[in-house]
Amino acid sequence: MKKYYIGLILLFTLLDSYAQEIQDNELDKLSLRYAKSSFDEFINLLSLPNDAHFPNDIKKNIQWCESAFANRGFITKKLTTGGIPLILANKNYKNAKKTVLVYLQVDGQPVDTTKWFQENPYKATLKELDAAKKWNTIPITKLEGDINPDWRIFARSASDAKGPVMMFLKAMDIINDFKQEPNYNIKVILDFEEEISSPRLPKAVIDYKEELASDMLVIFDGPRHISNQPTLTYGARGITRLSLEVFGPRAPQHSGHYGNYVPNPALKLSQLLASMMQDDGRVAIPGWYDGIEISPEIKKILREVPDDEKTIRNKLGIASIDNIAETYQESIQYPSLGILGLRSGWTGNETRTIIPSSAIAEMNIRLVKETSAQRMVDLVKQHIIKEGYHIVDSLPTEKERMEYPKIVRFNYNIAYDAFRTDFDTEIGRWLRKAMNRAFGSAPVQIRTGGGSIPISPFVNTLNIPAVIVPTVNKDNNQHSPNENIRLGNYIDGIKTVTAILTQEL
Amino acid sequence: MKKYYIGLILLFTLLDSYAQEIQDNELDKLSLRYAKSSFDEFINLLSLPNDAHFPNDIKKNIQWCESAFANRGFITKKLTTGGIPLILANKNYKNAKKTVLVYLQVDGQPVDTTKWFQENPYKATLKELDAAKKWNTIPITKLEGDINPDWRIFARSASDAKGPVMMFLKAMDIINDFKQEPNYNIKVILDFEEEISSPRLPKAVIDYKEELASDMLVIFDGPRHISNQPTLTYGARGITRLSLEVFGPRAPQHSGHYGNYVPNPALKLSQLLASMMQDDGRVAIPGWYDGIEISPEIKKILREVPDDEKTIRNKLGIASIDNIAETYQESIQYPSLGILGLRSGWTGNETRTIIPSSAIAEMNIRLVKETSAQRMVDLVKQHIIKEGYHIVDSLPTEKERMEYPKIVRFNYNIAYDAFRTDFDTEIGRWLRKAMNRAFGSAPVQIRTGGGSIPISPFVNTLNIPAVIVPTVNKDNNQHSPNENIRLGNYIDGIKTVTAILTQEL
Repeated sequence: MKKYYIGLILLFTLLDSYAQEIQDNELDKLSLRYAKSSFDEFINLLSLPNDAHFPNDIKKNIQWCESAFANRGFITKKLTTGGIPLILANKNYKNAKKTVLVYLQVDGQPVDTTKWFQENPYKATLKELDAAKKWNTIPITKLEGDINPDWRIFARSASDAKGPVMMFLKAMDIINDFKQEPNYNIKVILDFEEEISSPRLPKAVIDYKEELASDMLVIFDGPRHISNQPTLTYGARGITRLSLEVFGPRAPQHSGHYGNYVPNPALKLSQLLASMMQDDGRVAIPGWYDGIEISPEIKKILREVPDDEKTIRNKLGIASIDNIAETYQESIQYPSLGILGLRSGWTGNETRTIIPSSAIAEMNIRLVKETSAQRMVDLVKQHIIKEGYHIVDSLPTEKERMEYPKIVRFNYNIAYDAFRTDFDTEIGRWLRKAMNRAFGSAPVQIRTGGGSIPISPFVNTLNIPAVIVPTVNKDNNQHSPNENIRLGNYIDGIKTVTAILTQEL
Repeated sequence: MKKYYIGLILLFTLLDSYAQEIQDNELDKLSLRYAKSSFDEFINLLSLPNDAHFPNDIKKNIQWCESAFANRGFITKKLTTGGIPLILANKNYKNAKKTVLVYLQVDGQPVDTTKWFQENPYKATLKELDAAKKWNTIPITKLEGDINPDWRIFARSASDAKGPVMMFLKAMDIINDFKQEPNYNIKVILDFEEEISSPRLPKAVIDYKEELASDMLVIFDGPRHISNQPTLTYGARGITRLSLEVFGPRAPQHSGHYGNYVPNPALKLSQLLASMMQDDGRVAIPGWYDGIEISPEIKKILREVPDDEKTIRNKLGIASIDNIAETYQESIQYPSLGILGLRSGWTGNETRTIIPSSAIAEMNIRLVKETSAQRMVDLVKQHIIKEGYHIVDSLPTEKERMEYPKIVRFNYNIAYDAFRTDFDTEIGRWLRKAMNRAFGSAPVQIRTGGGSIPISPFVNTLNIPAVIVPTVNKDNNQHSPNENIRLGNYIDGIKTVTAILTQEL
């Protein structure tokens, strides 16, 4: 340890005078050191509620980011959108020949505080796993001492995606402190509405096409491959939200007086959902899988991903999988139709003996490059009509109630399409080189990630290739209560971004 | 009006000295007068929260009833049950040859205050319907003046069943004030757990068989026929509650990362529910309708009920009905299987893009005399097993999760069986006579009411016939938000009970 500190002192002395090449074998120590110096700032960032349903909360996140990026020498600009703005942070370098656009997401999923095992999902809580596989809180001050990489910080957005935001900022601190100058300019686009599907992003990319112009896009978001090996992801599924509500009697009715007489909307909804899918999980709607062909060559690349599917199933606690494809990676190459939530009447202690007045299903379609959002929505809609439903977009009128035996509210929101970049392009080669430098081996390469990120507007409007650099642990509970980030991944993330920022393009 | 008051003064003068025969043509005026004098006491009763999930609230209802019945000359006794007690109130008469047991229910359904159009469901609110068919609050003090029978008092249990409790108490006031003595003793059994399916009642009836011994049972509960004509009901369906929970991954999973791979429990539940029933609402489980034969003679009696099914459907806002039988009355002669509530993941603004970890369906079976509860539960259970499910009664173990692709929690609670009393028996003849006196015509006769009341334990254990005397308006929103009682029905209810109490047996 003493040697290390002497080294550091020497280093600091040198820093002020001239740029100091960062050796590959120093990346580990540097990322640990800068991680440790980041925790106060990270905890402060996590403390800001960031559910984009509450724009006043988002404002504070925006101010925080403007300040944090300005502190790193970026010039920030609000891209107004009519709602929550985007932030564009620019930093130019004198030897730059190209421009790299970096996408970061700042907002988070809503929180259901009753389901978190800590008082406040926005108060970062340090936990370690005990022998009984239970996460126990340990003092946050332990972050000041030696760090166990398996400890985790629990907080909303710890992984998705304030963790990556902080990793990027700390990597910038490293190259700034060491006076490293990339041979490309950096544009960072900060999205504060990702978890509500970035409704204003597609138009904003068109409106600010010139400001965003660049040669390639790097996205720091999402979890690494489940093996937790360094990963590059060349595409992501798109997403479209659907909301269905089947209507029953105008008001809930006594299940005794009317059971056997008044059609039950919860049953009708169940039947409608069941009609959309087979027992084995395959979508039963005709045309759903049209246009997707996975060649033997691609299957080979997909099989190279070191998935231990038995371990995946054990982690998830499931005995079987949907019958979509031979491997997990292949299953993600197809569009999925999923039920996110069901609600009708009351349940548990609140149960009432009634026939509900309506039954709601929230759904999503995860799109792939071959399946455009509108076509898939139309397929679902046609199926619902074929099942005998009259479709409305809000409440049915009294006339409609008396005319149609089957009425469903059908709303949809096309968030964004999928994107996919070929493996063998400039951006892929560049990132693979950086990852090789940082970790001494090739990263796991994912053809299409299952999760959706609002990248297709950039890819399509700016006509640039995009690759995702995921860093966080797969089991981070993102989108669920008790989201967390593993400290080892946080430190590795800083290393990853530093390697990329110091990689010649 | 002057004449009327002079008459009243004369009446009161006479009352103290000797019993005064109540003429049939005075019943209307008396019931109106006693209704008006009852409102303070009724509003006070309604102000007591009475959800039996909260025993401390129920205590206040018990105290209120003990006091109210003691004030009417009853001797009350707590029948301890190990939980919330029953109250038995006895009043004997010197010329009594028989004993009539009266069943009254005091507890109410839970309240979801967010769905009530008044601040507090326990604060009685007087409303009148405007031309736009909207219920507008009017000052409660209007009850002191002329009463419009179409006004309604909105409060939890206004109809189900504190209204009938108050009707009975006021009818007792009338016969007490007029020194009328029935030729039968009265035993009143007060149930404070009806809406949670009277879990302790069947055993209590056995334990207190001698205390409860009587010749017949009259139940003041439930709504009149939808035509709002005076009604007698000779039976009621029984009820059994089912709770199903289909399990998915151990924790909710990101719908992008795992959609197409992790089986969705909301889909599985939908498929399971859909498998139980046909598209036309008929139960698809083999054996469900076995043993029920509706003869042409019975069909004729059922058709005599003046149901205007077009009006029923209009009131409920439904374009079609389940395909169980030719008429509403006939549909109730069969057991029903109904979904009361569904819940999985999150919905509406809280929606998260996840694969839920489980999906819950709350259900009930409404039983008829021919279908015992246990047999019907077993039919459902066998069906679920046939659908490939492993059944658990609480959470699955880790081993079960990894072994069985389909796991469902299946719990059931047999509340009580159905009962049905033949039309042509002593109790039926006696009640029909009283109704004829009160209303000048024969009541509508219902073979089996759709709703369930915990009467089968009395019928089976005490071996006595039972008939229900419903009084409240059908459209009272019982079991739902905005429960109410129509004042015309409240006044008629006092008249009905008074006619019965003054009818020789």
